[in-house]
Amino acid sequence: MITDAQLNDYFSYLRFPSISADPSRAGAMRDCANWLARKLTTLGFEAETRENEGPPLVLAKRIGSPAKKTVLIYGHYDVQPVDPLPLWHSDPFEPVVRDGFVVARGATDNKGQAACHLLGTEALLRARGELPVNLIYLIEGEEEIGSPHFGKFLQARRDELKCDAILVSDTSMAGVGFPAITCGLRGIACLEVRIRGPKMDLHSGMFGGAVANPAAVLSSLLARLHAGDGSVAVPGFYDGLLPVDPAERARWKQIAFGDQAILDATGVSRLAGESGYTAVERLWIRPTAEINGLTSGYQGDGSKTIIPREASAKLSFRLVPGQRPDDIAAKVRDYLQAICPDTVDLEILYDHGGEPFYADPKSAFSQAAQTALQEVFGQPPALTREGLSIPIVSLLKDALGIDPVLVGLGMADCQAHAPNETFPLVQLEKGIEFHQRVLEQYAAHP
Amino acid sequence: MITDAQLNDYFSYLRFPSISADPSRAGAMRDCANWLARKLTTLGFEAETRENEGPPLVLAKRIGSPAKKTVLIYGHYDVQPVDPLPLWHSDPFEPVVRDGFVVARGATDNKGQAACHLLGTEALLRARGELPVNLIYLIEGEEEIGSPHFGKFLQARRDELKCDAILVSDTSMAGVGFPAITCGLRGIACLEVRIRGPKMDLHSGMFGGAVANPAAVLSSLLARLHAGDGSVAVPGFYDGLLPVDPAERARWKQIAFGDQAILDATGVSRLAGESGYTAVERLWIRPTAEINGLTSGYQGDGSKTIIPREASAKLSFRLVPGQRPDDIAAKVRDYLQAICPDTVDLEILYDHGGEPFYADPKSAFSQAAQTALQEVFGQPPALTREGLSIPIVSLLKDALGIDPVLVGLGMADCQAHAPNETFPLVQLEKGIEFHQRVLEQYAAHP
Repeated sequence: MITDAQLNDYFSYLRFPSISADPSRAGAMRDCANWLARKLTTLGFEAETRENEGPPLVLAKRIGSPAKKTVLIYGHYDVQPVDPLPLWHSDPFEPVVRDGFVVARGATDNKGQAACHLLGTEALLRARGELPVNLIYLIEGEEEIGSPHFGKFLQARRDELKCDAILVSDTSMAGVGFPAITCGLRGIACLEVRIRGPKMDLHSGMFGGAVANPAAVLSSLLARLHAGDGSVAVPGFYDGLLPVDPAERARWKQIAFGDQAILDATGVSRLAGESGYTAVERLWIRPTAEINGLTSGYQGDGSKTIIPREASAKLSFRLVPGQRPDDIAAKVRDYLQAICPDTVDLEILYDHGGEPFYADPKSAFSQAAQTALQEVFGQPPALTREGLSIPIVSLLKDALGIDPVLVGLGMADCQAHAPNETFPLVQLEKGIEFHQRVLEQYAAHP
Repeated sequence: MITDAQLNDYFSYLRFPSISADPSRAGAMRDCANWLARKLTTLGFEAETRENEGPPLVLAKRIGSPAKKTVLIYGHYDVQPVDPLPLWHSDPFEPVVRDGFVVARGATDNKGQAACHLLGTEALLRARGELPVNLIYLIEGEEEIGSPHFGKFLQARRDELKCDAILVSDTSMAGVGFPAITCGLRGIACLEVRIRGPKMDLHSGMFGGAVANPAAVLSSLLARLHAGDGSVAVPGFYDGLLPVDPAERARWKQIAFGDQAILDATGVSRLAGESGYTAVERLWIRPTAEINGLTSGYQGDGSKTIIPREASAKLSFRLVPGQRPDDIAAKVRDYLQAICPDTVDLEILYDHGGEPFYADPKSAFSQAAQTALQEVFGQPPALTREGLSIPIVSLLKDALGIDPVLVGLGMADCQAHAPNETFPLVQLEKGIEFHQRVLEQYAAHP
């Protein structure tokens, strides 16, 4: 059962309108950070707010003994804007409980998930007077605007943040009562392809038929990014892909997120993709080639009968463990150069890349988290993936050299980022319990 | 030899700054039309300016005898703007003779070519007191802005404009001393292809791989517009093409306009196109499929990793005699619908079409023109084509039911539409002679 004191703390945290995207909320951001630091101080942490160009970060450490393992818990105290406000049934920053759900901006993302940990720490201390591990809280205030200053902070404070495990609770469960650990995220390589032909747009009557059309050449190149079975046709694209545990794949069939959920979310009438894989597999463990944009010639109303002087496409490739962005970018470049006719000029720009992420579920902390989730929810967590990148995960891994373990305590239908965001009270209760058990399990792990 | 009086008339005509694109020149337009009407009146024509929404048209008729054949000569008294003015070596509207060339805006296009006819009529009358045919001059003032009101005028005045032959001198010779008759123009069918997928732009990480990408589907469809040999892959596209006289094709090899001219004009490093045809043939007698524009998703700087909700392309098909725009549009629609996957919605809009044009060189007037050109230039005219459409040709044909005969008296390097437009005085002399001979030849034709 959640106590009144616990609910009061959670509600106090939710009442700060800590919208990082809104410069007029800078005071609320600071108040929220100070509240967190005070709360952690009362729990025996050395806690402080750290200035870092944008809103302050909260860094709190409770190092009981150098002999104990050290766990870093990441969270963010900033929230999404509340627009459109008229769709809220109650004040976004005055939390209410309705049918067992807390309704407020940040109820889940990320104040609710962070509250599970904070109140879990408090419960542990109350029960045992001590924590089974050394604990570091690092709670930033810019996640919802892309964590622009977070990486720099991490790099500068690597020594202060030294730890044995990193826990991030900013993802979702696999379904009601179905816990999940997100073990993989896709990486990305973003390129731009530019085809240049004649020195100016040409009259398609005067020159059409005798001069290569850059838009047609571009289309022919892009059509060859995929093979007939929906796979990516770039030579070597799938080289070195890390194998996926068949048992892990088998378990994904139980996950609520499937074909109908994708149809509903996207509005398409039929799914598409690579042969031989389920929709969830296509999203989580298969790399892709996507065209993000096309530009060429005349784009207004009606017709303009030209051969456009150039044509360009924005491409992004989602990558899975075993692929490297730079290597994929080079393979794409080589392939397009090899198949491009010499009647046009081809330029390929590599915009940026991000590594795919994989956290081995056999790691000590992941094992501890799996056991704890099994104890709390009565069943083992699904070891899931996500198709996107989560920038802070890469930043944490890059700076601290440890694979964060992503334990989702949110629910897919919690309306994060939307009006009437919710968090089930039962989930808060289970989250508090999880926090205690995961730290105990990890401490006990050989 | 050109007489002073002839040169004075030509220069008077050139001095009107009759720029149809410039509304401030409306007075000059009217003055120019009135000058033409007066000039034709002095030649015994019933001449008048006709109001027609835009600048007036000049309509002049000299019907000597109902027993004679009637020839309509089309021209336009409006000219292109003079920008960029600093590149002119002399006032565009104060003609000068330099090295045997008259330099002025309109020197060739179309005042010079029209002057050949006007002064030819005058010479005929001076020599014989009568014309061998009934003659109608129809000189409009909106050709350089697309003749927006010309078709309506023609349709309304079909009875007044009844004739046996139409002569248009608004094209070019095949080279210096090489006369040409343009026997064919390509038609056109303009379509837009729109592919719609998800209900909004999707996060390419969350959904990439499981949902069809409209830009990728569009590229795959467009890539299939052409076969590997550069021909158009739309089924039935080439059905019913009228045969081209091999002798006509053989003569095109002598024409100055060829590969190097296309390379120079377009700035491409290599030509492209359908196998088995020369560049000139690809432009004149082969139909094409061109992409005029592409639009989809993100087109700004850097990257935006989305699956765009839609993608569209502007297409135009250049058509040759034997093809019909509506039929081609239907075939393209059927083809794209047949090959489009059912994972997206496909919409095809037919914007507009224009018939290809072919004037049989065996017609009485074309034969007369060929004989006259042979007499004047000492060699038979090349029977050429052009890759583009000339709107007034279609309008004249549609309204009067007669194929205009296009006798070019301009030179390809006359800088029409550019600074320092020229017309060789020798060409004026030969044009005046041509006018007399073609009417005599036509009158004498059985």
